[in-house]
Amino acid sequence: MLCFSLRAGMPGITAYGGFFELGTPKKGENVFVSAASGAVEQLVGQFAKLHGCYVVGSAGSKEKVDMLKNKFGFDEGFNYKEEPDLNAVLKRYFPEGIGIYFENVGGKTLDAVLLNMRVHDRIPACGMISQYNLTQPEGVTNLAHIIYKRIRMEGFNSADFFHLYPKFLEFVLPHIREEKIVYMEDIAEGLENGPATLVGLFSGRNVGKQVLVVARE
Amino acid sequence: MLCFSLRAGMPGITAYGGFFELGTPKKGENVFVSAASGAVEQLVGQFAKLHGCYVVGSAGSKEKVDMLKNKFGFDEGFNYKEEPDLNAVLKRYFPEGIGIYFENVGGKTLDAVLLNMRVHDRIPACGMISQYNLTQPEGVTNLAHIIYKRIRMEGFNSADFFHLYPKFLEFVLPHIREEKIVYMEDIAEGLENGPATLVGLFSGRNVGKQVLVVARE
Repeated sequence: MLCFSLRAGMPGITAYGGFFELGTPKKGENVFVSAASGAVEQLVGQFAKLHGCYVVGSAGSKEKVDMLKNKFGFDEGFNYKEEPDLNAVLKRYFPEGIGIYFENVGGKTLDAVLLNMRVHDRIPACGMISQYNLTQPEGVTNLAHIIYKRIRMEGFNSADFFHLYPKFLEFVLPHIREEKIVYMEDIAEGLENGPATLVGLFSGRNVGKQVLVVARE
Repeated sequence: MLCFSLRAGMPGITAYGGFFELGTPKKGENVFVSAASGAVEQLVGQFAKLHGCYVVGSAGSKEKVDMLKNKFGFDEGFNYKEEPDLNAVLKRYFPEGIGIYFENVGGKTLDAVLLNMRVHDRIPACGMISQYNLTQPEGVTNLAHIIYKRIRMEGFNSADFFHLYPKFLEFVLPHIREEKIVYMEDIAEGLENGPATLVGLFSGRNVGKQVLVVARE
């Protein structure tokens, strides 16, 4: 039941509201998700596929990229740590441009994305994790593309979408019953592993929601 | 009739759509407008006042700031060239935070604004003129505040709002008839003054829409 509650819980409503309400996706649109193996992001990719979109995700290891493609059904994925030119890699996967960028990392990735978006595209912004631990945040230099391309960028968190809960359950429950949505989380055992787990979270070791089990009943 | 046509024309519909549609203002909200003596921006300030908002504008000379307060009815105005600490000046004029930032300049101003916005605030983005002539644009470093404060930032131009034309005329025409909306433009005479006028435009010499009269009928 844990997986069920997570899919239908906080990450689920965050993914649903961010993607459907702020992303306003059309069937066939191109979607890019950064930090794509995260708890919310793996669901965004699957929602986008169920909606008939083309979906590419970035992540920080070969294992995670394999998971995006083989477990979560993303069309493509790449390891951003192995890509020195993010603009070039986005051009390769999106020769016709990005339609929705589900933003989680900020910084250099956002800068490259802004060069590859189309007119009237949307950036639901869920996080900018690359910036949180920097003493001096990186500057985003391509922001004027928001004007040139009339882009809508919008920050949010799950609390913004609690009113959508009934609509969200109506969408997600049949898919969970039919096992059309997969959910992966990272379970660490024992309070003594808490500090190492936290370090793992910020160095990108976990996949999906990081859970620490203090004691089994 | 020239002034009428401009107020009810391109700058008018741009100001109307940007402020009312994207800004979704509520009576009493705090509005900040940069490059506020511009053709669109002087109208935004007046629309905001007519809607019951508190409005502050920034501009690049004492004369323009006087005009904001004395001609266009802004509550306050400041000369950004005389303010070394934009964050401090915004805190002074908006101790409770900004509700809508009508964005025209980007760069350092946007960075300072992001520190002073409130939760669920809006940034209709009409231009980023401080960045257009730079070889390397300045980096905007406080963009993560879009997440923290769940801000919506949206680029636009007049073409996005042509469908609102009837609604816009219904709003603006009575105010023009009652002379409750003022419009200033900058008229240069003679084709020989074209190059100097263009230079003036990019160094901020003009007030409102810069018009070059090639020949009088």
